[in-house]
Amino acid sequence: MSVQLEPNGRLRHLLTTEGLPREMLTRILDTAESFSGVLGKSVKKVPLLRGRTIINLFFEPSTRTRTTFELAAQRLSADVLNIDVATSSTSKGESLLDMLRNLEAMQCDAFVVRHADSGAAEFIARHVRPGVAVINAGDGRHAHPTQALLDAFTIRREKGPLEPLTIAIVGDILHSRVARSQIHALLGLGAGQVRVIAPRTLLPRDIQRLGVRVYEDMDAGLEGADVVMMLRLQRERMRGALLPSESEFFARFGLTEKRLERTHPDSIVMHPGPVNRGVELDPRVADGPRSVILRQVTNGIAVRMAVMSIVLGGYSDATETGLEESPS
Amino acid sequence: MSVQLEPNGRLRHLLTTEGLPREMLTRILDTAESFSGVLGKSVKKVPLLRGRTIINLFFEPSTRTRTTFELAAQRLSADVLNIDVATSSTSKGESLLDMLRNLEAMQCDAFVVRHADSGAAEFIARHVRPGVAVINAGDGRHAHPTQALLDAFTIRREKGPLEPLTIAIVGDILHSRVARSQIHALLGLGAGQVRVIAPRTLLPRDIQRLGVRVYEDMDAGLEGADVVMMLRLQRERMRGALLPSESEFFARFGLTEKRLERTHPDSIVMHPGPVNRGVELDPRVADGPRSVILRQVTNGIAVRMAVMSIVLGGYSDATETGLEESPS
Amino acid sequence: MSVQLEPNGRLRHLLTTEGLPREMLTRILDTAESFSGVLGKSVKKVPLLRGRTIINLFFEPSTRTRTTFELAAQRLSADVLNIDVATSSTSKGESLLDMLRNLEAMQCDAFVVRHADSGAAEFIARHVRPGVAVINAGDGRHAHPTQALLDAFTIRREKGPLEPLTIAIVGDILHSRVARSQIHALLGLGAGQVRVIAPRTLLPRDIQRLGVRVYEDMDAGLEGADVVMMLRLQRERMRGALLPSESEFFARFGLTEKRLERTHPDSIVMHPGPVNRGVELDPRVADGPRSVILRQVTNGIAVRMAVMSIVLGGYSDATETGLEESPS
Repeated sequence: MSVQLEPNGRLRHLLTTEGLPREMLTRILDTAESFSGVLGKSVKKVPLLRGRTIINLFFEPSTRTRTTFELAAQRLSADVLNIDVATSSTSKGESLLDMLRNLEAMQCDAFVVRHADSGAAEFIARHVRPGVAVINAGDGRHAHPTQALLDAFTIRREKGPLEPLTIAIVGDILHSRVARSQIHALLGLGAGQVRVIAPRTLLPRDIQRLGVRVYEDMDAGLEGADVVMMLRLQRERMRGALLPSESEFFARFGLTEKRLERTHPDSIVMHPGPVNRGVELDPRVADGPRSVILRQVTNGIAVRMAVMSIVLGGYSDATETGLEESPS
Repeated sequence: MSVQLEPNGRLRHLLTTEGLPREMLTRILDTAESFSGVLGKSVKKVPLLRGRTIINLFFEPSTRTRTTFELAAQRLSADVLNIDVATSSTSKGESLLDMLRNLEAMQCDAFVVRHADSGAAEFIARHVRPGVAVINAGDGRHAHPTQALLDAFTIRREKGPLEPLTIAIVGDILHSRVARSQIHALLGLGAGQVRVIAPRTLLPRDIQRLGVRVYEDMDAGLEGADVVMMLRLQRERMRGALLPSESEFFARFGLTEKRLERTHPDSIVMHPGPVNRGVELDPRVADGPRSVILRQVTNGIAVRMAVMSIVLGGYSDATETGLEESPS
Repeated sequence: MSVQLEPNGRLRHLLTTEGLPREMLTRILDTAESFSGVLGKSVKKVPLLRGRTIINLFFEPSTRTRTTFELAAQRLSADVLNIDVATSSTSKGESLLDMLRNLEAMQCDAFVVRHADSGAAEFIARHVRPGVAVINAGDGRHAHPTQALLDAFTIRREKGPLEPLTIAIVGDILHSRVARSQIHALLGLGAGQVRVIAPRTLLPRDIQRLGVRVYEDMDAGLEGADVVMMLRLQRERMRGALLPSESEFFARFGLTEKRLERTHPDSIVMHPGPVNRGVELDPRVADGPRSVILRQVTNGIAVRMAVMSIVLGGYSDATETGLEESPS
């Protein structure tokens, strides 16, 4: 915790949603709200981070995630540099710390880090020098905080304050950095009730301790839910035979129109993407009127702009920074 | 047709030169003319597309073509993102449409699409949401409209109005998206006479129907031509043994200084590049005084800037937009 | 020489530090000094090269070097395009000269060239058209002038004028383009004494002719040195068994704290990076109080900005160009 928050409460890095004070969570969402307006205009750009350098440091390739951070940085007028570590630099046998020291010495302002190992972003945050921010873009099974924040932002936009809401997270909770970050963000924001729905083999032990209700039966878990958050089935992350087959998974935990009837009549359906149609979601649900999946993507840019602007320190409140001005 | 043109005549996408009204073709060339001036200055940049995002979506790698679009976008002050689909994203099994929906949701303004399949750009254009433009950067054997437009622009600059001109297109007409787009653009602009010169095996059936004259004999076809447009021999696109050998091809259809004597004394020589020296063109012709091959490349930037600025809607006439002002 | 300098003394290209007049070397360092101030600010950007296009043309991959040039160009507000020739373009059989002609025709202003062959940058410089500048980012065993200049800049910043200094270069002199460029830069700037320390097998014949003193014994060579410049052991560049083993190399030529005692009490330690810890340098020395290795990296951005701004012609003196102004 202390790694990402300074004693005065300032957000220095964003590594996890765990332990983030409610005020900070709310401030990120409020800041994202102010950027949403900018993104609706034809000139989708503010000069907030002009002359700052943000490095996308991807140890695990992800065109999709990298693209969202690159767009967010461009729209803040930052300079962006993509370093695909998997395919490039460490070929000369440079250590991770040496690589960091060098990039820091080039006077970069932030690293957006994606890594296959849990804890990698925090490791890097512990070692960067003062003034350099680290944003976790997904580390192993540990955390994916910007995804969780954009989900929370989407729920707040679609359903209003989280206090009265019942939110169900469905799927492979065990292997999901997204689920872990969602639970912390939603409870941190005061969500009324957070449920997890999964087969026992895909549930972490003691998951109840986080403050969620556990359901192994999909129908029971969906009952009256205001929000259904489906997880992506991370086939590549499964080890051994935790699941019999995709079709059996769909039969037990796939979201169909019929199952949706159990939820609140105004419920919304979410998914972090990309959707495996017919595995997690019936295509009619994925593309149906309750799906806000594409709005999550749109909101993802605004939320990432908010996180970047907050950790880079220049930003406290949209009204202070002349966001509405036409930038030069 | 209706896909790229709106009922009011506005150019929404650029997919093909086929069926483009003469006024629109002329407007693109006139707009390119206004950008040509900008590119001659040391600050080769106008603020026309500031805050707009253009995505180069290349399903088929082409550093050369991507570079021209990237430079054109930079010089309009747009933000550019390169997505090399061949090597990256669909690895997670995301469908093309899901990928498009996601990129659209990130509030991109245009896709520049290169694809090995004919019709791919139109398919994408049919599915993007309102407000997003598609520019075809080459789809299979179908079309390569920006190449054809830069060729027409080059001819107009070098030789004046197209009405009195005789233009010969030489080479593998059958497999060439460039030839197809050139024929439509040149005839659409009112060129006096368009000839195609090729062995029978490399001629599409019924090519005459497009309004061109067909020659299987190079010498006859070059007689009195004002412009000779050589095609690249797309070896990779040939299936089976349509041609005996490269040297025989050169003997029958290669452009030599001797053959050039048959053309008009002021004729010019064009090629879309990269040139296979000694296969399509004698090196002395490729680098000789009549060659305008490198001017085609220069003009390509201005023409692509024109297309981008027109489909992105902000642009109608150089004099209206303060192009001559020093951008801030 | 005449390739990089115009008759009036203007620097047209930067290919080598050999033969660069002392005034030009000093001017580059002075210009870099003025940029250093900019880089310390939060808005690390000046509008000096707005609307100019710089192409990183890397025939040999080097994420690290490319990154420094890309950052330098961004901070001058230039547009940058990365072309990784190794993996891309020449696949269509395009010759190097054709590729250059094409990129020039796109109205690029400078090429930053990295190539495995000695002389490649000069070859390109001899063939580009007037108005296009070439910056050598390392060519074979020949030269790496920006590295040498940033080293000289670092020495001047840390130790003051070079005249009274004794500078020792240690390691594989034979294969090192860095060493060659350092020797020319340091002697060109009037350094008091430049020594090279290496086993005989890693010394070029007649190296003395360059004006350096040669030591095969490390301890003798370090005696009283003000600056120790360690070279990277270019294992990939060694052919045959010039060295018995890395550990033996370290035993004879590795820089340890004990050996450092022979140098001047205020001596500094340099390395072009990335460091092979335990091969060239004891980790305690690499990370110790005398090491200025990371400051070299920081200075590298300012020096590359200086070189770009000088060869691109817009820049003569920080005070003339309103560097201190907040750019629009």
